[in-house]
Amino acid sequence: MLNNPVLQAMLQRRSIRAYTEQMPPDEVIATVVRAGQQAPFAYQLCSVLLSCEREVHPFAAPLLFTICVDAHRLEQVMARRNWQMVTNDLSLLFFGIQDAALLAENMVIAAESLGLGSCFLGSAPYRAEEIAEQYNLPLRVFRLVQLAMGYPAEDPPVRPRYPLEFILFKDTYPELTDDMVERAMQAMDEGYLAQDYYRNAGYKIPLEDGRSETFTFEDYGWTEHISRKAGQWLSSLDDLIEPLESRGFRVTPDS
Amino acid sequence: MLNNPVLQAMLQRRSIRAYTEQMPPDEVIATVVRAGQQAPFAYQLCSVLLSCEREVHPFAAPLLFTICVDAHRLEQVMARRNWQMVTNDLSLLFFGIQDAALLAENMVIAAESLGLGSCFLGSAPYRAEEIAEQYNLPLRVFRLVQLAMGYPAEDPPVRPRYPLEFILFKDTYPELTDDMVERAMQAMDEGYLAQDYYRNAGYKIPLEDGRSETFTFEDYGWTEHISRKAGQWLSSLDDLIEPLESRGFRVTPDS
Repeated sequence: MLNNPVLQAMLQRRSIRAYTEQMPPDEVIATVVRAGQQAPFAYQLCSVLLSCEREVHPFAAPLLFTICVDAHRLEQVMARRNWQMVTNDLSLLFFGIQDAALLAENMVIAAESLGLGSCFLGSAPYRAEEIAEQYNLPLRVFRLVQLAMGYPAEDPPVRPRYPLEFILFKDTYPELTDDMVERAMQAMDEGYLAQDYYRNAGYKIPLEDGRSETFTFEDYGWTEHISRKAGQWLSSLDDLIEPLESRGFRVTPDS
Repeated sequence: MLNNPVLQAMLQRRSIRAYTEQMPPDEVIATVVRAGQQAPFAYQLCSVLLSCEREVHPFAAPLLFTICVDAHRLEQVMARRNWQMVTNDLSLLFFGIQDAALLAENMVIAAESLGLGSCFLGSAPYRAEEIAEQYNLPLRVFRLVQLAMGYPAEDPPVRPRYPLEFILFKDTYPELTDDMVERAMQAMDEGYLAQDYYRNAGYKIPLEDGRSETFTFEDYGWTEHISRKAGQWLSSLDDLIEPLESRGFRVTPDS
């Protein structure tokens, strides 16, 4: 594996869930967001809201960025050129989520290079109305994800990832053999268990429908964790369609 | 604005559309994708397909990565833990697009740091079946975006972005005043015109519905370009729903 300061920043990054009280200077904030902006984009469909009210943020992080897909702003630009939005909202969201995530990842790495840490919070889309009120969002702006940021007050290890053979496929998508899947599961589970990740977090995802717990922190690893999420949560399309529609995005065809 | 080698890599990046014939060594490819993997994730829902057939790639780029949202692989993992996917496909796609874009942006910056250039190609979702056949994709794998990569054979300038005041909003989403919108449009248009971007590309988006062209390369700027895209293209939700459904993703509720 090759190395240099840029790769280093990416390969050593890990999510930070404890922060010092120190507020990053304005110049740091501006630099982080400017670096974010310079990411490739499809339509510049992303807006970034910033809150500095540490006391109400997750992990008491000094900075809380709310990354939004913003069709409203583009429509303002288009109106001044006598154009109206025609692209359907689902395509717009697909482009906008990519614009937002490309920008957000640059922010994460820029922060890392300046000695800051960060952590994504994924529940934003499902609390759309609450955030819309807090930030006075116009319709056609959809809060996608939040990013807590500040100077780290913890030094956790880098977290495991799937083996490269399980994600990078040359020329053709291979059959995922038992061997491959088991190696990947083992890498993730042993990696997280060796770091006592869930024990330290004191958290296992509760089993629903009266199923009784058979795992302890000795064997509850990442694959069980992620399976419980994807196997229990957000079963209804309406969980996402409703907040999208309440923010003015129509993603279902007329019936 | 602060600076360091990591910020430099992000602030100097620009899309590259001409490449030398030199094939990047395997170690470079592996490093770029590994750096991508280390980005934050929600579910590790991203797979990366690689083609090295330069002669059939856009810009004759030596490498063409196809970044996919991959629910199939997660379902393989879950099955071995006796779980079935419950999360609805739209939420899965929202998480997966973020996982994919966070990873892809790390790949872009990692490549930059190793002397390579890259360029995203956004038409992938709308040619889903073609790519699915080429790479033998199982159902539940959706090609999101392609990334061309190689050693640059051109040295274009860094492209303009909206002013920071038009994207970063503290505490509340502001009214976008005429002044703000016009400053932002001017920054983008004058920036692209000063670089002769569209003249060099020899391309204006054609006007549809018999509208006659009134712009020349003297005044056709970014805001006109992006307005023509969003004001003319992909009007139907089915443009995206059909390729998603053909790949096994159901994003509309039962009627």
